[in-house]
Amino acid sequence: MKAPPEIPERLRALIGQGTDAIETPVLVVDLDAANRNQQRMTEFAAKHRLRLRPHAKMHKSAEFGRLQLQAGAAGLCVQTVGEAEALAAGGINDLFITNQVVSVAKLRRVAALAHQLKARGGQLAIAVDSFEGVERLAQAMQLTNAVIDVFVEVDIGQGRCGVAPGEAALQLARLIARRSASLRFAGLQAYHGGAQHLRSVAERRAAITAAAERLDDTRRLLVAGELPPAVITGAGTGTFAHEAASGLWTEIQPGSFLFMDADYLRNERDAAQPQFEPALFVKSQVISVGEGRAVCDAGHKSHAIDSGLPLVHALPGQAPLAFANGGDEHGVLTLADGGTLPALGDTVWLIPGHCDPTVNLHDHLVVVRGGVAAGRVEAVVAVDARGAW
Amino acid sequence: MKAPPEIPERLRALIGQGTDAIETPVLVVDLDAANRNQQRMTEFAAKHRLRLRPHAKMHKSAEFGRLQLQAGAAGLCVQTVGEAEALAAGGINDLFITNQVVSVAKLRRVAALAHQLKARGGQLAIAVDSFEGVERLAQAMQLTNAVIDVFVEVDIGQGRCGVAPGEAALQLARLIARRSASLRFAGLQAYHGGAQHLRSVAERRAAITAAAERLDDTRRLLVAGELPPAVITGAGTGTFAHEAASGLWTEIQPGSFLFMDADYLRNERDAAQPQFEPALFVKSQVISVGEGRAVCDAGHKSHAIDSGLPLVHALPGQAPLAFANGGDEHGVLTLADGGTLPALGDTVWLIPGHCDPTVNLHDHLVVVRGGVAAGRVEAVVAVDARGAW
Repeated sequence: MKAPPEIPERLRALIGQGTDAIETPVLVVDLDAANRNQQRMTEFAAKHRLRLRPHAKMHKSAEFGRLQLQAGAAGLCVQTVGEAEALAAGGINDLFITNQVVSVAKLRRVAALAHQLKARGGQLAIAVDSFEGVERLAQAMQLTNAVIDVFVEVDIGQGRCGVAPGEAALQLARLIARRSASLRFAGLQAYHGGAQHLRSVAERRAAITAAAERLDDTRRLLVAGELPPAVITGAGTGTFAHEAASGLWTEIQPGSFLFMDADYLRNERDAAQPQFEPALFVKSQVISVGEGRAVCDAGHKSHAIDSGLPLVHALPGQAPLAFANGGDEHGVLTLADGGTLPALGDTVWLIPGHCDPTVNLHDHLVVVRGGVAAGRVEAVVAVDARGAW
Repeated sequence: MKAPPEIPERLRALIGQGTDAIETPVLVVDLDAANRNQQRMTEFAAKHRLRLRPHAKMHKSAEFGRLQLQAGAAGLCVQTVGEAEALAAGGINDLFITNQVVSVAKLRRVAALAHQLKARGGQLAIAVDSFEGVERLAQAMQLTNAVIDVFVEVDIGQGRCGVAPGEAALQLARLIARRSASLRFAGLQAYHGGAQHLRSVAERRAAITAAAERLDDTRRLLVAGELPPAVITGAGTGTFAHEAASGLWTEIQPGSFLFMDADYLRNERDAAQPQFEPALFVKSQVISVGEGRAVCDAGHKSHAIDSGLPLVHALPGQAPLAFANGGDEHGVLTLADGGTLPALGDTVWLIPGHCDPTVNLHDHLVVVRGGVAAGRVEAVVAVDARGAW
């Protein structure tokens, strides 16, 4: 439905050039850093015998999805039907829509996608949290002989989507199991978004420990009801070490770790989880210099600010800079600790506060090797699922 | 350079249908309301003998640009070279880049665009705030025999781009006037972004009064230096009545008034300025209902939150709802004042906090007549300059 954005010649011409040739404000991925982040997560999952299904709502790109599958991921998560369609069009075969879909028109698209993925030997999964949602899904799935994996979403503390833990989850699982041969009860979707950005390790551990207790009660109820959940899936970049430690989750679905954003870097680091490094940068340029300030061409149309402002990535020899929001197209830079302001025309690299909505602002990612300052452009990757609903 | 987004068949098929057929989360423009807003602004400008050059960084669409030109606008403002290129490709001939451009590669694009617009009988203008910026622009303009209008940007209080008022502005105007026959000193760019969202009329008046004093000193200096500014341009939706009252500005460049966002609606209304009405909405759907809450499918990937959360547009008979941010893809709705929560599958219309970056999240605007609740889809308009830098 949504055609992937074509790579304009102006961007394609960058391939093989040094990073100084990249225009601004453009989103740049340090591929070496991203590969190291993926490797660390792959090793963590293997060590804890967890299936890894990274959340592609972060990068929205079939290219990075393939990189993750090649590194051992079992499949990918997405958050919207449009994201699933865009990644399927890009060749990804195993997708889980970790969200509620109740629109009849969208559920028809879900059924069509389940059909298409089945024909390719793949599999589609989706979350539900209401009887009505199951009923509508079952009706749409009459359009196909494919079977969709259906996860009961349980609200383990976030207070957003999901049924209450316990009896409500069992009832929903029973409906899925008996309603239609096109629906297969696959397990529990249990994600605590609110815990990801709690600053201290102790707070995050406490939130996931409490969530795990509620979840374990629900699991026991399902086992007693002869509907044992084959998969319990959830967790994000902020907490996955705690979900792993609980022994309850069988699959983790972090997304941000691959590019790693400034807001996660502000969390107290958890010794139990691997250390990730920033791999996503906005390249910006100083376009104006005033009294005590330099103004760059990156405002909140180039990076999302829902989880705080970007950090300035200081290169060796550069003075640390503070970034203030200058509106849609500007950032205002001041000296954080003495030294010299950058000059007109200079490059300033920013680490966005939040990867997912930042990537969603851009049609393309410029992928470099050898670091952002002195490296070379390796590829230009389309953000296939940008703005796809 | 950036190809305008094609209208997918799924959206094109909406034309002529009722608004209930529109999927979610999609951006919808109430064309009747937008036309009334434009009419009010056109009348205001005519009454105050001001030239109106609306800022197209808000709608980023050639279609709405044409609507504004047909309603009497003298041309359009844009904020990036890519926006100028995209609107020129859509047939707009008179464009002013109200921002600093110092990248050599971008300045070559500026020169090429000036050339192209001249061939079509149009005109390109740009702002500068440094000697170096003038020098680089002059070098790039050697590529063409076109003349570009150059405005000296003066910092009248925002503390972002712009030279200090006074002598610095005169020196820059002198350099423009003598540097190259391809550069024409056109006047002063004097915009006070920081004043737009001051909540009270008194604060906004005080900010623009102080700005006008600094600007008038600069104007006198230019007159004395035999470089009288032919045009003094600036102002936004929050303050334009004060710029008009000063008698100093000759052109105003508001953008948001056309669609009118929730944040401007939070300002104390100024009796001196026309009343604008919301014309931009996110159509969203309730996808989950929990204890005391309904969750809709519009998060901050569907609307910008830099200027506050969206308001819920209550239709007759609907209980007032409070909107809390539920992350990238979710909004959490609670009852603001008793009544009944919307049910699963229900439509909820949101008024975004800030138009410009909200439009920038979407590839298309679904344009309706007869109101968002009961109207019909008139057209689907591409956001031509989305993400264009």
